[in-house]
Amino acid sequence: MSGRKEFRDLASPEEAHETIAGLDIGGGSETVPLAEANGRVLAERVDAGLDVPGFDRSGLDGYALRARDTFGASEGDPVALSVVGTVEAGQRPATDPESGEAVEIATGAVMPDGADAMVPVERTSEADGTVRVDTAVTPGENVMAAGADIAAGERALGPGTRLTAREIGLLSALGIDEVPVRASPRVGIVSTGDELVRPGEELDSGRGQIYDVNSYTTAAGVREAGGEPVLYPHAGDDMDAMERVLRKAADECDLVLSSGSTSASAVDVVYRVIDEQGELLLHGVAIKPGKPMLVGRLDEAAYVGLPGYPVSALSIFRTFVAPAIRRAAGLPEPETATVEAQMSGRERYEGGRRRLVPVGLVTNGDGKLLAAPVDKGSGATTSLVEADGIVAMPADVNYLDEDERVMVELFSPDVRPPTLFGVGEDDPLFSRLLDRLDRPRYLRQGSRGGQRYLRDGVTDIGVSSIDTEIGTEIGGWTREWGLVVPDGNPEDVTGLGALVDEDLRFVNRPTESGLRTSLGNALAELADERGVERHELVEAIDGFEFTVQAHESPARRVLAGDADVGLGLRATATSLSCGFVSVGSERVRVLANPERTGKAGVEELDRELDAIDDLLDELPGYGR
Amino acid sequence: MSGRKEFRDLASPEEAHETIAGLDIGGGSETVPLAEANGRVLAERVDAGLDVPGFDRSGLDGYALRARDTFGASEGDPVALSVVGTVEAGQRPATDPESGEAVEIATGAVMPDGADAMVPVERTSEADGTVRVDTAVTPGENVMAAGADIAAGERALGPGTRLTAREIGLLSALGIDEVPVRASPRVGIVSTGDELVRPGEELDSGRGQIYDVNSYTTAAGVREAGGEPVLYPHAGDDMDAMERVLRKAADECDLVLSSGSTSASAVDVVYRVIDEQGELLLHGVAIKPGKPMLVGRLDEAAYVGLPGYPVSALSIFRTFVAPAIRRAAGLPEPETATVEAQMSGRERYEGGRRRLVPVGLVTNGDGKLLAAPVDKGSGATTSLVEADGIVAMPADVNYLDEDERVMVELFSPDVRPPTLFGVGEDDPLFSRLLDRLDRPRYLRQGSRGGQRYLRDGVTDIGVSSIDTEIGTEIGGWTREWGLVVPDGNPEDVTGLGALVDEDLRFVNRPTESGLRTSLGNALAELADERGVERHELVEAIDGFEFTVQAHESPARRVLAGDADVGLGLRATATSLSCGFVSVGSERVRVLANPERTGKAGVEELDRELDAIDDLLDELPGYGR
Repeated sequence: MSGRKEFRDLASPEEAHETIAGLDIGGGSETVPLAEANGRVLAERVDAGLDVPGFDRSGLDGYALRARDTFGASEGDPVALSVVGTVEAGQRPATDPESGEAVEIATGAVMPDGADAMVPVERTSEADGTVRVDTAVTPGENVMAAGADIAAGERALGPGTRLTAREIGLLSALGIDEVPVRASPRVGIVSTGDELVRPGEELDSGRGQIYDVNSYTTAAGVREAGGEPVLYPHAGDDMDAMERVLRKAADECDLVLSSGSTSASAVDVVYRVIDEQGELLLHGVAIKPGKPMLVGRLDEAAYVGLPGYPVSALSIFRTFVAPAIRRAAGLPEPETATVEAQMSGRERYEGGRRRLVPVGLVTNGDGKLLAAPVDKGSGATTSLVEADGIVAMPADVNYLDEDERVMVELFSPDVRPPTLFGVGEDDPLFSRLLDRLDRPRYLRQGSRGGQRYLRDGVTDIGVSSIDTEIGTEIGGWTREWGLVVPDGNPEDVTGLGALVDEDLRFVNRPTESGLRTSLGNALAELADERGVERHELVEAIDGFEFTVQAHESPARRVLAGDADVGLGLRATATSLSCGFVSVGSERVRVLANPERTGKAGVEELDRELDAIDDLLDELPGYGR
Repeated sequence: MSGRKEFRDLASPEEAHETIAGLDIGGGSETVPLAEANGRVLAERVDAGLDVPGFDRSGLDGYALRARDTFGASEGDPVALSVVGTVEAGQRPATDPESGEAVEIATGAVMPDGADAMVPVERTSEADGTVRVDTAVTPGENVMAAGADIAAGERALGPGTRLTAREIGLLSALGIDEVPVRASPRVGIVSTGDELVRPGEELDSGRGQIYDVNSYTTAAGVREAGGEPVLYPHAGDDMDAMERVLRKAADECDLVLSSGSTSASAVDVVYRVIDEQGELLLHGVAIKPGKPMLVGRLDEAAYVGLPGYPVSALSIFRTFVAPAIRRAAGLPEPETATVEAQMSGRERYEGGRRRLVPVGLVTNGDGKLLAAPVDKGSGATTSLVEADGIVAMPADVNYLDEDERVMVELFSPDVRPPTLFGVGEDDPLFSRLLDRLDRPRYLRQGSRGGQRYLRDGVTDIGVSSIDTEIGTEIGGWTREWGLVVPDGNPEDVTGLGALVDEDLRFVNRPTESGLRTSLGNALAELADERGVERHELVEAIDGFEFTVQAHESPARRVLAGDADVGLGLRATATSLSCGFVSVGSERVRVLANPERTGKAGVEELDRELDAIDDLLDELPGYGR
């Protein structure tokens, strides 16, 4: 299995940067219509081809006249001139004033020949074809001379200028409707895994298929970096097709990215094509995650192979590939892509490689930013949205201390910390409540997880259905729980006793879950009633140790026919049209970090917790 | 002239914000393919429809086995298991291990039934169908359980989530290829000026036509704010057509913007259409620039009339309209749109209205940001690129002091201060040199302007061909100047004397220009020679007071037949194929602000000044 190839000579991250910087990934130019030029980078300098304005232009509404005629005029001693015509913006002046004459003129209109200044209407009064002017003006006053804005032959914009609204304004003024811009590097994205299926298509989980995450993620990253992503159709497990796609992408693009499949045959195809048609420049980088990065050339195109795990792929893309795309596109590094934060807790790593630690951001009670490591495995796609950026941990550093100041490289410049950060019990009411908040982040790690994070001072709030002294209760509700069975309860399950006494396949929730604790308590009561030990009952339940992740998961197993009974809520049974055997009711509490009760997001939640009557009505088995 | 309407009851800026906030400018939702969802805002919450992963997934390359079989295994005492099969990613496991057996497994592959853990290849050695395992694992170790990443029924993303690369990754993992997003508000842009011509079309300057700047500028601003701009064809001076366009835009868009024409008839059409089909909610705002802003409704659409001058239009758009578009699109206010700076000099305004002062940014020697007011008239389009943002000056404040700390609202979040800020002489060599620098800003305000800005400590460098004690010289060159005449010198002009003695129409440069000073000096010498007063010679020159803006401008007047002789450089005459009569040579000096010689942009310029030999060769009449 080539996935087991060993990477003996890992390149340093600096070598990887250099190698990628040495690749030619485009940089030609193209001409685009002005209306599509926003955000592009000017390929050549643009000189003014004409004077702006193209004529001596009146700056205000008023009267065009000869400055000399106004000399000595004042409020007490106005001069009188005869009005011999009118000129509006967009008109050719029909009359030229002689000495002693004036022409009524609108802002932006052409100054008539003979007039060398204008007086604003506020300093005049007109009656019977005569205007009285109560101020003196100098030649040129209130007039923008032809070319005064920009004159023909002047340098208007330099090469490398990023075109935004304002540069587009200047180009418009010059009458330019097509602009030479740096070509966006074309970046081909090839997905090379037997197991990958494009979103929208049918998935065969039994075969280990998963949806292709990296293609769309990388495409979005490429676009954010100023490249033009080209998604190639997924070749599935047809090795010849995959090879054709790789060669086609190399032919059509400046840079080809494939995100590392872990499947041996796919990796072999990549190696073969690079071998036959290009050059492998770098194989493996001393960085975690991302060790298996490949850099090379495929014909004229540059090639980078990204790791397969989504967070790894995005981290490596951001760290090594995006800067190269931006350089080729002529774009600067984004200004706000790095923020300073304090570690929310101690983070250890002794792998001897530079480590990129994905972290989520949260503001603490003082408004300071904390960086909380996202400790799901790097294979998790949810880490993508639970992390806001990465902290680079040098190879010779074994831990980052709690409160240590670190620089967080954000995944994109517009990443913001969530307004509210919570961890806790998976609950359908709370899940709906989150929809009413502005940018919350909530990790379902059960009541025990919620209590742990809250105790460690990482989160703003915890949600727990297990009693605790931790935190300040700011709200709560009760929920009815019990056994979820197929619709109509075909096995006639009557209660917990049936799980023990009958031949039923059960599905449980993990020990972190508050529901699991309630089940444990109910079993202890039953054991008391029967005069036996609790573990005897537990051992008699087929599947007691078989736990599934989320509050709906046991019910879904029941629905799929994989189990007879699942631990769950009445609300879940109702929403999935299952049968339900009630066992008890438990209280779910929302607990705030006492140091953050004044944080806006916590206050917002506090208010929303007072207005949950509609949700209580909507969810069967829920109450105050 | 309706441009003369008086705005008696100006609304306060706060009222204007409220009125615009009260308009309904869209906010529905639409479904877009995932590949086009980057940057959009989720309209509804998205729940996971499936477990991710959809199967128990091996986390590493190695062996799937029963955890119980490894209990007690260690490096000194490994356990031996028979290898009964292999499973790759994307394959259905063909063999299930019994106790005492293992299945070779790749990262990401489906765990075979019966196996409840896996051991990474690094902790094993395989020979002859037997694998030796030197570590114990617990059930579930190195396995990602089905649904552990995200389980069916869990809340994946909340409404209002901005979709970036990472959210797109999570949606991909869920197999979602179409997403419900907030509809971008459609913003119709109607240009309503008789005098306006779309870029790319022919311009008649004699009629006072100018290119339409605000349409494309506003369109770019609309797009940056998350709206979908719709440019309507310019109706020219056909009032019926203009009315039809306005009604059509109101019919098709959520918001209609027109940028204030100063032409009376165009304004009348806007009033009539609003009157017949909508409601005028606000007319005039106590803010400079932007007083003539209109806010109203046109049928179902909201309507805002922007001022006509480009800088005013963009300032008012940014201040009042962009936030409303962002709100409708569900986008947050950009984080970095405001920076703190110190005023580079004193700025006065006593108009009794809030004033938006356009400023350019520059970093001083200490790396601090200075805000330098852009003092061109607001009619200038070059102000668009010379300003980086606006400073709001309250109505009751009459001046901002030098060094006063102000907040600068940037025109867009990615605006950066230039790397080098200079003011000075208009010179073709320096203009080419600027192309070699990274983001310089250079204002051509002549040698005298250059000296003034440098003396005031505003600029990094000045360029002057007039001798001065100001600044530190970091480079320079000489250039030959004289009289530009038509090709072949039809009037046989021999030198300055001809201007005085013959009937020639002359075109001069402004007094700020160094070239004008050289001309003055040469005329003083000629007066000495002839034993007359200098002013006598000057008065004898037809057109001595007729000055044009840029170094090429006199030559272009000659080319156009509007003059017989123009003041200019040999290099200009050559590049425009004119004749040239040499008068002298002058030295152009690049002078650095002594406090900023260590600034990166100045150092970059200093280096480039040592490498101008190619430019000296390229430009006739230039030398060391």
